[in-house]
Amino acid sequence: MAVYTDLTDAELAALLAAWDLGAARAFKGIAEGVENSNFYLETDAGRFILTIFEKRVAKDDLPFFMAVMETLAQKGFPAPQPMRTRDGALLGEVRSKACAIVTFLTGVSPRRPNVAQCRAIGVKIAEMHRALEGFAMTRANALSVDAWGPMLRPRLALADSLSPGLAALIEADLAALEATWPTGLPRGIIHEDLFPDNSLFLGDEARGVIDFYFACEDMLALDVAVALNAWAFEPDRSFNLTKGQALIGGYESVRALSLEERTALPTLARGAALRFFATRLRAWDDTPPGALVRPKDPLEYADKLAFHRRAMGVGDYGG
Amino acid sequence: MAVYTDLTDAELAALLAAWDLGAARAFKGIAEGVENSNFYLETDAGRFILTIFEKRVAKDDLPFFMAVMETLAQKGFPAPQPMRTRDGALLGEVRSKACAIVTFLTGVSPRRPNVAQCRAIGVKIAEMHRALEGFAMTRANALSVDAWGPMLRPRLALADSLSPGLAALIEADLAALEATWPTGLPRGIIHEDLFPDNSLFLGDEARGVIDFYFACEDMLALDVAVALNAWAFEPDRSFNLTKGQALIGGYESVRALSLEERTALPTLARGAALRFFATRLRAWDDTPPGALVRPKDPLEYADKLAFHRRAMGVGDYGG
Repeated sequence: MAVYTDLTDAELAALLAAWDLGAARAFKGIAEGVENSNFYLETDAGRFILTIFEKRVAKDDLPFFMAVMETLAQKGFPAPQPMRTRDGALLGEVRSKACAIVTFLTGVSPRRPNVAQCRAIGVKIAEMHRALEGFAMTRANALSVDAWGPMLRPRLALADSLSPGLAALIEADLAALEATWPTGLPRGIIHEDLFPDNSLFLGDEARGVIDFYFACEDMLALDVAVALNAWAFEPDRSFNLTKGQALIGGYESVRALSLEERTALPTLARGAALRFFATRLRAWDDTPPGALVRPKDPLEYADKLAFHRRAMGVGDYGG
Repeated sequence: MAVYTDLTDAELAALLAAWDLGAARAFKGIAEGVENSNFYLETDAGRFILTIFEKRVAKDDLPFFMAVMETLAQKGFPAPQPMRTRDGALLGEVRSKACAIVTFLTGVSPRRPNVAQCRAIGVKIAEMHRALEGFAMTRANALSVDAWGPMLRPRLALADSLSPGLAALIEADLAALEATWPTGLPRGIIHEDLFPDNSLFLGDEARGVIDFYFACEDMLALDVAVALNAWAFEPDRSFNLTKGQALIGGYESVRALSLEERTALPTLARGAALRFFATRLRAWDDTPPGALVRPKDPLEYADKLAFHRRAMGVGDYGG
């Protein structure tokens, strides 16, 4: 929710000259995305999103992300399609920063997804996994189990200050997950961050999946676990089993989960919750007191972790 | 540059039900405007901006602002046209806040206006003044000469801390302007805040004027003075006489300035600069240390004031 880079008219014109999209007819910063600067861009050729990549996204990863989006769009999956420059490149440059222009997708991000939307996003996750089978490039998941300890162990006192007793619970989560994190499950390219605000709907119809800047190679079922955390909990942080059933059912209508994946789902869901708790705790730690932009509440994921600790099997998630 | 209010799906649907615009097809917060929450809103009926009015805009003033925009749009001036609700109202309500839906205008705000754009905005200011002749409602300028002292005098030490010696200069500005602020000049409804980011251009063609939330009844020439401050200075804070000539010439191609207005222009320009210095100094004062959103630099207007103090007549502005 921030625009970090604003462009002068000359910079915008020079940038657009690299593409074959005509002149700008509208250009507005979008209060969306915390990692990059995003602009609604309308040109003679249509409607687009211009993204300027700020320092938190590693430049070396950008060709992977852009290729994922282009592959998905070419296969008919509703991901933003990157526009190639006149030179055939997927990325441009402005102010020594990489940038990309992708198609604007119609739709509204659900703030509180309903059951039908949970089912629809489950379908879309599986379709995305299918469309990316055999994808030629790869990128390791930088926020997998090995990354959680280094983020969390230096901040256990902070966790305890937010909720007394939380440090011990998080230490136990870390130990349990580091010991039991699944191996051998089916792998592929996953989105890894498919929250409702990275989806676009018209009514109950999923019309777009956006923000592929955490995409990586990992266990396919981890995407389902992330989505269960992001879509099937209510605002009061209770788990809505009907929404979980819908999400898993939607996914399995396209790609069935194996017995091993189903067995691993509670562990994956707990790990996914710990990953978001870890990144939110770090952001909380990094935010100066008095900042106008408040980071997301890490305790939302502490509460979700409490649910996952008690889960006995895939049935607790509606699977 | 902030979205303060975000809406749930149910809130957005309930809000849209008050209008006859169909369902939302796109809905994105815009990083624009510091006083209100603005959203790009696309529905079955077209493209709009939804504005939710936050507390800094007085609710009692909203009917005036909306009527100004509607009058301008009806007269063919390129201002956003407010959409009336099914009940014929210009304002709706969401979360106990007033909101409005206006037409989306095509165009890009120039970051660094050129001479042709300065001329074009001069034309538009005069056309706006003409279109609002005989306007039935009124609103006093809350940021006129009487308001500057109460904003500035308690913050003279802050001014001096930003630039040693500035306090004495500002005190002298205040005394001079309070003693010589013009009366008897032609009055009407003015925009009062026509900065480049409140304008929309396609190339050199002015396609829109937006953000009427400082509009008020005051001297018409004050709008020219505000625009000279906002359009004719270069990024290094030097005054570009060619741009000043273009702006004044554009204005006078539609409405000639009287001898009294021309004589008063240096005083009005100095007053306009002091008004923006005052509001920026207050915003600077109100911003907690460490805030991520940095307020605009008050010293930009201290530098512009230095130019105005030396100006001998309208010729120094290109008039």
